[in-house]
Formats: sequence, C-alpha cells, structure tokens
Amino acid sequence: MANVAKKVSWSGRDPRDDEDERAGETTPLLNGTGPGSAGGARQFTPSSFLRPGQLSNVDLNEDIRELETELPRPYPNEIPHNEKLLSLKYESLDYDNSENQLFLEEERRINHAAFRTVEIKRWVICAMIGILTGLVACFIDIVVENLAGLKYRVVKDNIDKFTEKGGLSFSLLLWATLNASVVMVGSVIVAFIEPVAAGSGIPQIKCYLNGVKIPHVVRLKEGPMIHSGAVIAAGISQGRSTSLKRDFKIFEYFRRDTEKRDFVSAGAAAGVSAAFGAPVGGVLFSLEEGASFWNQFLTWRIFFASMISTFTLNSVLSVYHGNAWDLSSPGLINFGRFDSEKMGYTIQEIPIFIFMGVVGGILGALFNALNYWLTMFRIRYIHRPCLQVIEAMLVAAVTAAVGFVMIYCSRDCQPIQGSSVAYPLQLFCADGEYNSMATAFFNTPEKSVVNLFHDPPGSYNPMTLGMFTLMYFFLACWTYGLTVSAGVFIPSLLIGAAWGRLFGISLSYLSKGSIWADPGKYALMGAAAQLGGIVRMTLSLTVIMMEATGNVTYGFPIMLVLMTAKIVGDYFVEGLYDMHIQLQSVPFLHWEAPVTSHSLTAREVMSTPVTCLRRIERVGTVVDILSDTSSNHNGFPVVESNPNTTQVAGLRGLILRSQLIVLLKHKVFVERANLNLVQRRLKLKDFRDAYPRFPPIQSIHVSQDERECMIDLSEFMNPSPYTVPQEASLPRVFKLFRALGLRHLVVVNNHNEVVGMVTRKDLARYRLGKEGLEELSLAQT
Amino acid sequence: MANVAKKVSWSGRDPRDDEDERAGETTPLLNGTGPGSAGGARQFTPSSFLRPGQLSNVDLNEDIRELETELPRPYPNEIPHNEKLLSLKYESLDYDNSENQLFLEEERRINHAAFRTVEIKRWVICAMIGILTGLVACFIDIVVENLAGLKYRVVKDNIDKFTEKGGLSFSLLLWATLNASVVMVGSVIVAFIEPVAAGSGIPQIKCYLNGVKIPHVVRLKEGPMIHSGAVIAAGISQGRSTSLKRDFKIFEYFRRDTEKRDFVSAGAAAGVSAAFGAPVGGVLFSLEEGASFWNQFLTWRIFFASMISTFTLNSVLSVYHGNAWDLSSPGLINFGRFDSEKMGYTIQEIPIFIFMGVVGGILGALFNALNYWLTMFRIRYIHRPCLQVIEAMLVAAVTAAVGFVMIYCSRDCQPIQGSSVAYPLQLFCADGEYNSMATAFFNTPEKSVVNLFHDPPGSYNPMTLGMFTLMYFFLACWTYGLTVSAGVFIPSLLIGAAWGRLFGISLSYLSKGSIWADPGKYALMGAAAQLGGIVRMTLSLTVIMMEATGNVTYGFPIMLVLMTAKIVGDYFVEGLYDMHIQLQSVPFLHWEAPVTSHSLTAREVMSTPVTCLRRIERVGTVVDILSDTSSNHNGFPVVESNPNTTQVAGLRGLILRSQLIVLLKHKVFVERANLNLVQRRLKLKDFRDAYPRFPPIQSIHVSQDERECMIDLSEFMNPSPYTVPQEASLPRVFKLFRALGLRHLVVVNNHNEVVGMVTRKDLARYRLGKEGLEELSLAQT
Repeated sequence: MANVAKKVSWSGRDPRDDEDERAGETTPLLNGTGPGSAGGARQFTPSSFLRPGQLSNVDLNEDIRELETELPRPYPNEIPHNEKLLSLKYESLDYDNSENQLFLEEERRINHAAFRTVEIKRWVICAMIGILTGLVACFIDIVVENLAGLKYRVVKDNIDKFTEKGGLSFSLLLWATLNASVVMVGSVIVAFIEPVAAGSGIPQIKCYLNGVKIPHVVRLKEGPMIHSGAVIAAGISQGRSTSLKRDFKIFEYFRRDTEKRDFVSAGAAAGVSAAFGAPVGGVLFSLEEGASFWNQFLTWRIFFASMISTFTLNSVLSVYHGNAWDLSSPGLINFGRFDSEKMGYTIQEIPIFIFMGVVGGILGALFNALNYWLTMFRIRYIHRPCLQVIEAMLVAAVTAAVGFVMIYCSRDCQPIQGSSVAYPLQLFCADGEYNSMATAFFNTPEKSVVNLFHDPPGSYNPMTLGMFTLMYFFLACWTYGLTVSAGVFIPSLLIGAAWGRLFGISLSYLSKGSIWADPGKYALMGAAAQLGGIVRMTLSLTVIMMEATGNVTYGFPIMLVLMTAKIVGDYFVEGLYDMHIQLQSVPFLHWEAPVTSHSLTAREVMSTPVTCLRRIERVGTVVDILSDTSSNHNGFPVVESNPNTTQVAGLRGLILRSQLIVLLKHKVFVERANLNLVQRRLKLKDFRDAYPRFPPIQSIHVSQDERECMIDLSEFMNPSPYTVPQEASLPRVFKLFRALGLRHLVVVNNHNEVVGMVTRKDLARYRLGKEGLEELSLAQT
Repeated sequence: MANVAKKVSWSGRDPRDDEDERAGETTPLLNGTGPGSAGGARQFTPSSFLRPGQLSNVDLNEDIRELETELPRPYPNEIPHNEKLLSLKYESLDYDNSENQLFLEEERRINHAAFRTVEIKRWVICAMIGILTGLVACFIDIVVENLAGLKYRVVKDNIDKFTEKGGLSFSLLLWATLNASVVMVGSVIVAFIEPVAAGSGIPQIKCYLNGVKIPHVVRLKEGPMIHSGAVIAAGISQGRSTSLKRDFKIFEYFRRDTEKRDFVSAGAAAGVSAAFGAPVGGVLFSLEEGASFWNQFLTWRIFFASMISTFTLNSVLSVYHGNAWDLSSPGLINFGRFDSEKMGYTIQEIPIFIFMGVVGGILGALFNALNYWLTMFRIRYIHRPCLQVIEAMLVAAVTAAVGFVMIYCSRDCQPIQGSSVAYPLQLFCADGEYNSMATAFFNTPEKSVVNLFHDPPGSYNPMTLGMFTLMYFFLACWTYGLTVSAGVFIPSLLIGAAWGRLFGISLSYLSKGSIWADPGKYALMGAAAQLGGIVRMTLSLTVIMMEATGNVTYGFPIMLVLMTAKIVGDYFVEGLYDMHIQLQSVPFLHWEAPVTSHSLTAREVMSTPVTCLRRIERVGTVVDILSDTSSNHNGFPVVESNPNTTQVAGLRGLILRSQLIVLLKHKVFVERANLNLVQRRLKLKDFRDAYPRFPPIQSIHVSQDERECMIDLSEFMNPSPYTVPQEASLPRVFKLFRALGLRHLVVVNNHNEVVGMVTRKDLARYRLGKEGLEELSLAQT
C-alpha cells in the first residue's frame, strides 16, 4: 500500500491570522493557542491533496481568536462550523517518561529510602488536596447559602409587602435585577479574564485526564467543585503557582506531566467526593474518565484524597451548623437518606424504572440537541465578551421573570404546617398556606431536589410539577454553555426529579394509591434518568447516587435506569460533555479504537515524512526546524548521524521540542572544530524549572556563529522510544498508545528505519459514525 | 555490559521425575505440570552457572508431584523449601491478540452490526454470570444454614439432655464427630480429586487475573464465592465445559485468553458482590487484583454482573425467607445496618481507631508468620492425601473440643430475654439465662460476627471475649491452608470483632461508661483491623465493609484502620495471600517494577540466546524445537529466511507453540520441491477448537518424509510483535509488559535483529527485599 500523505485544509485564511498568532505567542494569555502549541511531529504541506467530500474550510476557531484579538473580520458570518474537524491547536500531555541519561542517572542515584520519601510526599500532597478541596467546598457552601438566603429574604419581604399593596411588578424587577447583577459579576470574570472557567469544567477535566493539554485548565481560578479540586491539585503538587508567581521550591520531583496528571485525578475525585459526599464515586469518576494506565497505589491515593475531602467538609460544616462532630451528612449536595423500610421497591417496579430510563434518554437527547443548536448559534454570533455578559444577564433575568410569572399564576396552595419549606411565599394563598410553585422556584436548586425526593405524597400539584418541568427544562438548556461557571448536574437532577415525581403521582392515581407508589422514589429515578440521558455516565454516576442517597439497595434500579437512558440517548445524539468536546475539535481518544478499524494499519494512519534529527546535529538546523511555524512538531526521532550518506537511517532515540529549547537556552553545544570538547552538562532540574511553560524558540537568541556549532543529543534523547512496525493494525497501535499514555509513537520498517510518526491526532481522527468509519479532517487552528 | 546467561538450578534430580512428567503430559489431570507448560522462549542450559548464595535445590513441587503420582521418593524429607525461587511450571496467559492474517481477515469481515452482536453477547454472558453466581450463593446459604441448624440443634438437645444427667463428655464426642465427618467429606474431595480447590481461592484468582495460568483454576468444582463466581464465568463464557465434556457451540468468539480473563474478572466481582452484598466492592476487588489494562466498557460489564448477582441473591432469599421482594438485606454476610444516629463517631476517636489499626497490623503479622511456619511444615511433612484428610479432621475435632471446653468452663451467664441468640445453651446457668461463651462458639461464624457488632453493651463478659479471641486466633491460623475449601475472611472478621469489642468494653470502663464508647463500633473497627492486617487489601476492602454495613460515614475510619494495619503489617511480614503465592513460586507481577531497578536494562533482564524460526521453515526443525523438553519455549520469533546467510536476521514476527502445534496437526506444509504450491488453508476456528488445551507435540505423528517438507509461517505469525531496544530500563520494559498483558516481548538491536526475549519470569524474578533489589532463582519445576 502506498503511503498516504496527510492533508490539511487551507482556504481563504486572512494573512493577519498568522500575525495574530505570532503576536499571541509572546503574551501569556494566548499561550497555547499560538503556533507553538500545534501538532505533533508532522509535516503539513499545503500542497497535499484533499480527499473528496472533505470540507476545506477549517477556520473553526477563528471566532475564538477574534474574540481574543477583537480585530474586525472580513467574513465572520460565513464560517461554517463543523464538528467533523480535529483541531491541531491542542497539545498532548506526555505520560511516558523520557528515559534519557540524565533521568536514569538521577533515578539510579536515588536509593530505596529516598524513594520512600517521594512516596510519603505523594501521600502528603493527596492529604493536602483533600483538605483544601474540602475547605473550598465548605466556603462555597456557606457563601452560597448565605447569599441565596439574603436574596430570597429580600425578595420574599418585598413580595409579601407588595402582595397586599399591589404592584408586584416591582418585586419582579427587584428579583430579576438581583439575579442579573450577581450573574454579571461571574460572567465578566469568565468572559474577560479566564474563558476556560466557563461551564462545568467537566469536559475540560475529561480532556486533561485523557491526555489533552487544554490551555489554563488547571490554573488558579474559581469553578464548580470537580474543577476546583483539579485546580487545587495541580497547584499544590507543583509546589508553585505561575498565576501567583510564587515558587515554594518544594515537590520539584513532581514537575512533569505524569506526576501532575496523577494529582489532578486525585483532585477531581476529591471534588466529586466533596460535592456529593461520594468518596467512592469520586474515585470511579476519575477512573472512568481518565485512567487507562493506573495502578493500585495511585488508586489508593486518589481514594485517600477523596476520603479526606469528604471528612474535612463534614467536620467543618458540622461545626458551622452547630452540631459539632456529627459526621453523618456528607457532601454539599445531600439527597437525604432513603430508608429502605419506608421507600423500598419491589421487583414488579423494575419495568417501570426501565420505562423511566427510556423517557430520560429521550428527554436528555432533546436537551443535548437543543443545546447543540444553541452552542452553534453562540459560536457564530455571540463571541464578544460584552455580548456574552449581556446574554448571561438576560438569562438570569428571564429565569427570575419566568419563575415569578409561574408563581404568580399558580393557584397551588399547601398548608404551611409540617412542611420544611425554607422561604414560604404566601402570595394569594390563605393564611397558614404557602404557594407550592414557589418552593420549586424560590429555593436553591439543591434544596428543591431534596424536597422533591422527600416531601410526603400530596405536597405537589401535578399541574405545578408539569409546568415547572417544562419551563425549567428550557431555562437549563439555555443556561448551559453561558460564560459563567455553572454545571448541568443539579439542573438535570431537578428536571428529572420534577417529572419523576409527576410520573409517580400519575402512577398512584392509576393504581388507586397503592402503598408502593411513593412519588419520592420516582423522583429519584427520574433524576437519575434525566441526568443519565444528558451526561451518559453510568458506573460512577450509579455509585455517586448510591452514596448520596446512602442506600445500597437502590443501586440496582439506578444502574438499570442509567444504562437504559444511556442506550436510548446514544441512539439519537451524543452525551453533552462529549458533544462539547467534539465541538471544540479536541483530539479526544476513546477507550478503544473503532471496532471496524482493523483494516487500517500504521502505514496508513501515520504522518509522513517525519522530520528527523541526527544524533550530532548542527545548531542552525535545530533552530530552523523549531522555528518552522508551518510544521510545529513537538517530537523528533533521532537517527544515526552518518554524514557520508543521505539514506534513511536507523532510529536511535526521540527528543522533544521542549528539551531542545532548554538545550539551546543553556547553550549546550560545541564548535564544530572542537567536537571532542565536552558539552556543558545540564541537570534534570534545568528541565524541571522550565516546566510546564517552556519559552518559545523566538525568544532564544542564537548568533550566526552559534548556528554553526554542533549539538550532541545522545545524552538528552530518550534512547528507547516505543515503536511499531508498519504492519500493525490501527487497534494495535491504539492500544499501545492509549495504555501507555504516549505522545509520539515512531513507526519503523523492518530495518528499524523511521518511516512515520503516530500522534494523538492521527488516532483521534478515526471515528465510528452512523455509516461506519469516518475520518475527520485536521485544522491548523 | 555483557549478556548474562540465565541460570537454572539442577541438583540430584531423580531421573524418574522426568518420566513422571512425560507420562503426565498425556493425562488431563497432570496437564500443566508437565514440561509442556514450563517456561517462555528461553534456553536452559544445565551447564550455565549458579550465582553464589543461590540455593541449588529447586525441587519445590516434588511434593506435589509425589502427591499426584504416589511414587516412593528416595529423599523426600531433605528438600529445603525456599521462597526465593520462581517456578517455571506456570505458564502465562496471553492478553495480546496474535494479529496474524487469519485474525485480521476475520476482523475485517465482521461488520459493524456483527460487532454489536458480539457486544450484546458479552452483556448476556455477564448477566448469566451474575444470575448463576447469585443462585449458587443462595444455594450455599440455604444449605449451610440448614446443615448448621441441624448440627446445632442435635448437639444442643444432646447437651441439654446430658447437663442434667451428667456425662457431657458424650456430647463433646458427638460434636467433634459431627464436625470431623463433615470436614472429611470436603477434605477427601479436595485432597484426592482437585487440589486447587483448597483454601479460599483468592490467591489463585489473584494469580489468574495477574496473567498466570494456574492449572484447573477455573474448572468446574465447588469453592467459596469468589472462586465460584470465577469458575462459573469461565464455564459460561466458553460455551462448553471440558470437565463435563459438553460443547454447546456457542460463544466461540470468546475462546481466547483475553476474552476469558475479562469474564473471569466479572465472575470474581459477582462472587464478592454476592458474598458481601457489595457490588461496588466486587468491581473494585477485580480492578485491584487484576486490572492493569481495563477499559470502561469492561468495567461496566463487571459492574452489571455484580449488580445482577446481588439482586438475584436478594430476590431468591427474600422469597425463601417469606418476606418476598424485600430487597433491603443484600449479601450472604450481612453486617447489619449501622445507624449513624445511634453509633456515630467523633473526631476524637480517630486516634483510637488508628491505634486499633496498629494492633490489627501486629496481630495480622503474627497470624501470617504462624501460618507461614505451618505451611512450611505441611509442605514438608503432610503431602499424602490421607495425611491431609486426617489433619483436616483433626482440626475439626479439636475445634469442637476447644469450643466445648471453653463453654463448659465459662460461668458467663446472660438473661435469655430480649437476646437474639439462635441456639441458646443453658448448661449450668440459671433458668432463663444462657451461656454467653456458647453464643460465640455455638453459632455460624457469620452470625457470631453480627452478634458482636450489634448486641447491646453488656452482652459479653470481657473474660469470655478474651479467651475466645485467643483460642479462635490459633484455631483459625491452623485451619487456613488445610485441604478444604475455606477462606480466611470470616474467621479474621470474627477474631477482630471479638478483640475489638473487648477493646471497646475496656474503653468504656476507662471513660466511666461515656456514651460514645459503644462496643459494637469498636468490634467493627477491630474486625477491619484484623482482616486488613492479615490480607492487606485496602481500597476494595474499605468499600466492601462500607457496603456491608450500609453506612457511608464509616468509610473514613475504616479506611484509616485498614491503611494503618497494612503499613504496620507490611513492616513485619507480607500479606497472607501474597505469602502463599510466593510459597508456590508463582511468577506474579506486581503493579510496578521495583523502584530501584532503573539500573537494569533489557539487555540484562532478557533471556538469550533465543530460538528463532525462519519464515519458511523445515517441518523437522519445528518438530525438534517443539520436542526439546529441556527448553520448552512457548513463543518463537520469526526471522527473515535467507538460506544463504547464517548471520542473525531481522525480526519479522512471532509465533506461539500452540499455533505451531495446530499447524502440524493439520499438516499445513508443502514439499520442498513444490514451494510454489499453496499450503492448506486453516481457519481461526481450527485454533479456537483446540483452545485452551492444545495437544502435546508427542501426540502428533510426523513421518520422516513430512519432516523434509517446508512450512510457511507468514500467514500465521503475528507480524507486529511488541519490541524494545536493549537500552530500555527494567521499569520501562515492565510497564510495557504489564500494561499490555504480554507474554513475550522481543528485544531487538538497532538493526531490528533479535537479541533476546523477555517473559514474565524474567520480570517477576526481580523483587525488592529488605536489603534492596533481590533476584530469585528459577526452577524448572
């Protein structure tokens, strides 16, 4: 089979694009979107052909770049957004240690005792991650509770006042303004300062754990709990913060992708654990999302961090709430205990639960489809920060208005006695009664969910629940993807709990009020079905819900519901997180290669030709290769340096762009005439200090004389990179790549000569579509 | 560095040994202990040297062989047993698909829909595994409950009768005889028919999931739940049973190591899930023990099987117990619900729990050390089945006698009213009272554990608990390793619960009966500490105990206790399972290479020289290589067949012994003169039908003419075996090997020429000992 040259699509690119990128290269904010971050070792030749049927316009992220540079575009509205595209702007993380001489010398110097110290440090860091994540969760909980309490009290007083006097429109205004102003603050921060903080952070963490470097994903900033945990972990484990410009000179051993990722896993788990009081669920979340190459010790540490996080949260909150040391209600979002005696289920209900799973799958697919169109709309038309802030404020105000109108129109009055409503709104109800619709809208969503689960039968009017589900569904769908830090978990649970309870009430009507039809139980299943239908997680979600309800026996029906919802939902459209990852054109590697991809071999998948370096190379050549903005390779095979022959030579090792840059920066080379002189020695520390933000090649000055010097790469290259023969099938290559967390995989022929290179993008572009194997096109941006 | 030739130790081997082995080769019972199962591709030369300090006597399993063949030995008692030895009798499983042309053709023929069918089949099999495991658990539960009930009723009536009349020694005799006769039946089955069924099965399943083929480990037989689940899984997934000689002609696609192992994981998880009502714990058990290379879909299936298993068990047992469809008490061993309100813990108790962990670690280490000496004794002196049966009966009788004497001597009477004792023995107590010591001994251990957890304060006399702990500790230690199917889980829990409760009672004396010192809580922590100190599992055990108690908040202290117990215990001696694995000289691969092994490279680790085959090879050569009993390689690198040169040639592929045997059996070769003729075509089915018990080479007749034919391996070899360069460090080789579940890893030089081969034994022999890196010697047996 002939080698197939890789194609990349160029069309009508504004020349200023490249200027923008190059300008961006030197400013920290744009770091990672510039050319320095594109692509693995791959040569892109604009002249290479396009396969028929492939779209040629690839300016996917033009909008984003425009957003950053605020330059007028000639044709911003004509850009078709296309998810059948893989962006090259995302770098890969490298979980394979570069086993060069420096590394081996250090590892050999370290004795057994020192390794134990390193191991103890890992545990200490995990404990710190757990404690800090728990504390952050406490802080968030207390602030949210107080702010929400303040808001609801103010609005309630106002409504109570104006109910009598008339002029409730003023109350509406007050509520909408309060909502909008709070959202404005959050939105401005996100839109103008840190765009990665938008959304729930889960897609970003998914990508990071998968091995994709999302710029700024673990830099200091606020965000929902999972993301917070990850950020804390990245900060602590490196013993420094680039955002705060502080280096504590500790934990330097952990300054590499491998170690950092392990800690981020622990942080994400601690975040889930704190949010739901689900330490095991947290561990499984981390495993489900990231761990293709984990081990027992790592899992223990992750579990340790999770446990500490829940424990810290519990201890502090128990003190704050006055009942010190009562550690029985873990988690920010506590579903309340489901008692098996009161709310058991029978085997006859299993088909009903499965039916609810089907409903959840369909509703979830609808939610995702609507959100997809909305996201496309946003990408096309709402890319200025000010527009984004206005949209966020608009959503906040509309939410308040819809809530208000619904409450106003509702005639569902319930006796106030014996109910657990925090802010009962009397409105037009009789004395001693409250408006039931208000409990749903006029409450933090976390509390509303618990109320829907646990309020006794008869607390809600079916009409109220139906209207609430309908309105909240669309509002939540509109909210997800706004430029605020907000997730989809709680809204999904709330929607699901509402229609689940409605379903339960209908059932009890049908069955003439049988004892088994407790609507709370159906609210729980509905919540699981809706959440499962939207995010399509199963294992970790089952465990999270089991732990949040504190009931093991509910595990089986919850799992059934989640699986049904996933299968049904997958039939229509992808999960919400996967959809957003795909819309960002992230080269995400799934668990396995597409099942029908055995027909492809490494020969067809790999990028070729590969830019190789000789073992003893001219400095000028290295600089030129690194400066070549059209290729931007990150890893270079090192071949035997035989100056007398021009033929392809045997593979000797692999060296990374980052390593070359450190070598050039420290002037590690000798004059050609003095090749016998010893090069300057570097230490591993020099590489670690530069991690993770290595300077761009443009910032390193190499004089004309220095260009003629020679650089000996033997000591710095990885002498044993993983290789595959050309005949290896795509699934085989994929397995090796995924299991070891590789960034570069060299393809060699029978004589160990380099014939190609496989990087993450080469594997991620093959996908199983509706009509079989699909191939995504690659985009430079 | 010079290549280090591999050594194997031979000394004073009875020539009949080899005859035994060869004879065994053709009988199914001995399959796997004969020469066909030894070693990877490695040449053992008896002339190779021994390093100083290495023991030269390696006839570890002589005893076992003797046990099987019953031949008199000249010097059976002189054999020093040595755990610094690695046996070559264990084959590896192969989790790397041989990607030869046949395989690729099949995979390419299968379209997307067919893959979906395969996937659905996997789920169906997992559901069946879950259901069957659950049913087996039910069966065991009901039988044990009834048998034990019968036994206790008979003995109780007898004791009640003779307490008045005098002559209790007859009751003692009755009890001891009953115990001994039940144990005799079990022991005879194990000792004479299926020796692998001895013990808990957990070490064997650990090894299997690790990738070691333990003969008969998943053949049909009875055994504790974890093992039962695994056996069921192996049986169902292959669609046939070799023990029962039935082939249902279904699930043929799954007849390979990769698929089978996945199902066995699910089976083991289902077993744990059924035993403890801990579906998540079951999944984590499988992951903790086996999964270095798992993925999400597999984990889901494992979880599914676990859930189904608990659910089945629950449903059937709820019907059996009359309260149909009450699914709230999952698991055979139910710890009873620990209610947070009644039995909460405070932060001040954490140090106390940690102290209990320390105690558990020390006691566990003591238990293991004693059991170690006992096992050594057994290996040396008790190797005849009749002796083993007698020992088992002796232990059973002594257990009854000790229990009887303790009950007899006890003067701890408790009021019978309000207690939950199943078989209250009055003995010399006043009317309306029962003997408290009898509740501990005169009960199934499962029930005793629950009683210790939940009986109200004051139910037990400290003296009673102390004596019970002491006696039970030694009895349990003596019992583990007998030739009966019996685990260590429940006895450990019981010992720990007893001393934990004692500890709790002492605390409440010290603290003048403060409310927080509920002895049941300390019984739970003691049980965790003791079990952790013995088996040294942490993550899965924490989750299992969390699920068995139905209480999430206890997770944190249980984890602390388990970790402390593990750290303290590891300081003294290994975990019980690991110890037994090591005593069997199993080449077990841990999670990571020893930390200080960076100084070793593939060059030093690999076996060399390697027996290679040419791509077109003479049949006679193949037969000779396969028949060479001194080497018994299982995988052969295939090199370019250039008849004109004798130099080392480039690697082209890898072929397995099993594949060659199938080729020879089907006469897939052509005459040398007719090389252009097409060889007979084989189908993948021909290989699958022979799996997993390929015939030995001796059973295949190859005539002298046929020996001169040529065999073309191109179509059958794996053309892209994984390789490493000689410079790769041991941790790097280890990671590749472990992450992909390899069996053979070819070491090549810079020109892709074969220089060595790394197999499981080459990696497993490096171990971190007390004084740094240790190297085990290899033994042919």
